[in-house]
Amino acid sequence: MNLLIKKGPALWRRAKKIIPGGSQLLSKRSEMFLPGGWPSYYKKAKGIEVWDLDGNKYEDFSLMGVGSCVLGYADPDVNRAVKMAADLGSMSTLNSPEEVELAEILCKLHPWANMARFARTGGEAMSIAVRIARAYTGRDKIAFCGYHGWHDWYLAANLADKKNLDGHLLPGLDPAGVPRGLKGTAFPFHYNDIAALEKIAAANKDIGVIVMETLRHTEPKNDFIKKVAQIAKKIGAVLIFDEISIGWRLNVGGAHLLYGVNPDIAVFAKAMSNGYPMAAVIGRKGVMDAAQKTFISSTYWTEAVGPVAALATIKKMQKKHVPEHLGKIGERIGKGWKAVAEKHGLDITVVGPNPLITFSFNPPAGGGKINQALKTLFIQEMLKRGYLAALSVYVSYAHKENHVKSYLKAVDEVFGIIKRSIENKTTSNLLEGPIAHSGFKRLT
Amino acid sequence: MNLLIKKGPALWRRAKKIIPGGSQLLSKRSEMFLPGGWPSYYKKAKGIEVWDLDGNKYEDFSLMGVGSCVLGYADPDVNRAVKMAADLGSMSTLNSPEEVELAEILCKLHPWANMARFARTGGEAMSIAVRIARAYTGRDKIAFCGYHGWHDWYLAANLADKKNLDGHLLPGLDPAGVPRGLKGTAFPFHYNDIAALEKIAAANKDIGVIVMETLRHTEPKNDFIKKVAQIAKKIGAVLIFDEISIGWRLNVGGAHLLYGVNPDIAVFAKAMSNGYPMAAVIGRKGVMDAAQKTFISSTYWTEAVGPVAALATIKKMQKKHVPEHLGKIGERIGKGWKAVAEKHGLDITVVGPNPLITFSFNPPAGGGKINQALKTLFIQEMLKRGYLAALSVYVSYAHKENHVKSYLKAVDEVFGIIKRSIENKTTSNLLEGPIAHSGFKRLT
Repeated sequence: MNLLIKKGPALWRRAKKIIPGGSQLLSKRSEMFLPGGWPSYYKKAKGIEVWDLDGNKYEDFSLMGVGSCVLGYADPDVNRAVKMAADLGSMSTLNSPEEVELAEILCKLHPWANMARFARTGGEAMSIAVRIARAYTGRDKIAFCGYHGWHDWYLAANLADKKNLDGHLLPGLDPAGVPRGLKGTAFPFHYNDIAALEKIAAANKDIGVIVMETLRHTEPKNDFIKKVAQIAKKIGAVLIFDEISIGWRLNVGGAHLLYGVNPDIAVFAKAMSNGYPMAAVIGRKGVMDAAQKTFISSTYWTEAVGPVAALATIKKMQKKHVPEHLGKIGERIGKGWKAVAEKHGLDITVVGPNPLITFSFNPPAGGGKINQALKTLFIQEMLKRGYLAALSVYVSYAHKENHVKSYLKAVDEVFGIIKRSIENKTTSNLLEGPIAHSGFKRLT
Repeated sequence: MNLLIKKGPALWRRAKKIIPGGSQLLSKRSEMFLPGGWPSYYKKAKGIEVWDLDGNKYEDFSLMGVGSCVLGYADPDVNRAVKMAADLGSMSTLNSPEEVELAEILCKLHPWANMARFARTGGEAMSIAVRIARAYTGRDKIAFCGYHGWHDWYLAANLADKKNLDGHLLPGLDPAGVPRGLKGTAFPFHYNDIAALEKIAAANKDIGVIVMETLRHTEPKNDFIKKVAQIAKKIGAVLIFDEISIGWRLNVGGAHLLYGVNPDIAVFAKAMSNGYPMAAVIGRKGVMDAAQKTFISSTYWTEAVGPVAALATIKKMQKKHVPEHLGKIGERIGKGWKAVAEKHGLDITVVGPNPLITFSFNPPAGGGKINQALKTLFIQEMLKRGYLAALSVYVSYAHKENHVKSYLKAVDEVFGIIKRSIENKTTSNLLEGPIAHSGFKRLT
């Protein structure tokens, strides 16, 4: 396939002049995929198909709206509900009844929770959860694990040590503009390192909040989640599970349900509304009631599209057993990567969970830069074959067996190219542009 | 008109059990209008008409989606664009080209600005602006005036003195859950009180940010806005104009354009996308570039509905000269209130600006509680006559002369009732439920 990709990169250059960083999301920067060559913009997306500004069509075996479109793009059932909400007026001086229905469904799915609040982005929902938790305990200090967004409470960890947030998904997050008065309020611990959390709790009697992603790419070991909950209980801290990335993928609801450990608060956003802005904070009544002691209020949190899209998405996930599908397809992709890599003698590591299936290159004479070059070559060559590709696939309900079969054929070709480029030391020669960026850095 | 309003109040009681505070927005609590009797929820809204859950139809002469629906509910042009965006996929792994177009239009409308970032709610957009400003100056302290939402940077003012935020629109905002490390970072000054800002600047050499609503109900006096800008320049602080409530109403863009004073950053949300979640931070390149020094990133900020709705709304505002219409209709309402009040010998005060026209009762034997009872009686009696009413009207393009004429007839009747109730001291007898709440308080 010989693609002409011109309009997208040109618009991206224009965007970088007028939008600092080019996009509103680090993970959507073209440089994170294929600097100079990435189509960057779309004019249509349907199922797993995406059309760029030049009219090229791709299948998305990458981030699927950075994890937000779990049913596939422009899902007909969700869109039917959203368009009806638009026709009926998505906003008024009165409230939208759908938000009460959504609160009730979320609490039914998570029987430990009795109350809900809503927002429109994951980051602000996490901020609401932290505010409620701090208001409840009257203690400001937070122990946390994982990635939780751009807000002050989280980036404050890097005020004490610029590397505190490294190892929590995005390395190098700069806390510029985070007030120094927050120094010493956020303490990181790593997943499965219960001793680290115990140490934080012992050294800081006033930890009021423990925040963690239930899981991401690492399975909990030695009852890790349960032990975190026990520590939270022991020190009287509010336990918040961030389910923004993992929720709705392993099961219809929060992943914590699978581990039999209940937090005080759980936060959802991605996937729950299939790409329409929506976020939810659910929790135990006693804790959530603290939301009434403090001021948490925003006009756009009251519009109808978010709850309507969430209701339609959740109902479809239930009816179609979507998480099972994601698991099956993800497993198929992971096994396919391994089989094709073995065939070519390419050393890769595949990690789950299946709905977020991910691989990495383990080149013999390894090193981050070579890995990053191989990643770039993979994306470049997959793009030529009609795929938006990354080292992670956020599987959607729109990914079917036949798509995977064709995708793996392309991966077979590309893994062959990559293997030969390693053997012949020609990887950089094969790259038609610069190596992809990783992590947070200034974009020019 | 004899209305049966049952389903809405019943759902509101259910909501308060599962959503702390009942709604996501203080200004949408039923108790802020008519405790027990407010329809609370809608099933359809079109133009200025709103249907409640019992099928009663009202005309909205109150907050019009708390200021967000400046074209009227379910505007056909905005909805056409939004529904097409849904059909074309409102989210993908690639970016939405509409956000570049929107950035360019916003900068064209505000020639002093060269860059834009987007969010989905006003509160988070203000947080982004403050983060960028702090990152730019490297100074954490903020002097501010007016109402700016629920975030820590703002509520921190009440850590020093619980009454610091009184007089800034919402009295009694509790800073519970705001980290104490932020104490002494936010300093309030009142509108038109330039001496107060000078005093803050003199006492705190490290003020890095000055935040103000360009205007709300008070006109700037003695070049107030210009003088604030001069102080910002003198002390090297970033000047942020919060245009969330006033923007797009007096002119197509920020109200500051009318006063010939340019900030470093301006923030928009309400009105710019006619009720679909959208918010923008625009600014001078030098300052906005600091967004690249810090991490500001969120997945849902990249979906297409927000920018598409904003583009359609802004284009219609331009084409139809919407701000002129809002001004004319608002003036008509304000004059109508005065005329009807005079006819009945009722003492009221009307304040502008016309697109946010507002009145208050000045009862002879005044006092807040009596005023609040009169307000409640006004809402109760207007509701019976088919109006969602408040003491403020956020005028929309869907409010036409004939609507105002009928509305003023109803006001005439109700002002008569109110005047007689004052004379006969029967106001509380006439109330069919409790007096409306004002400001922030716990809701049960």
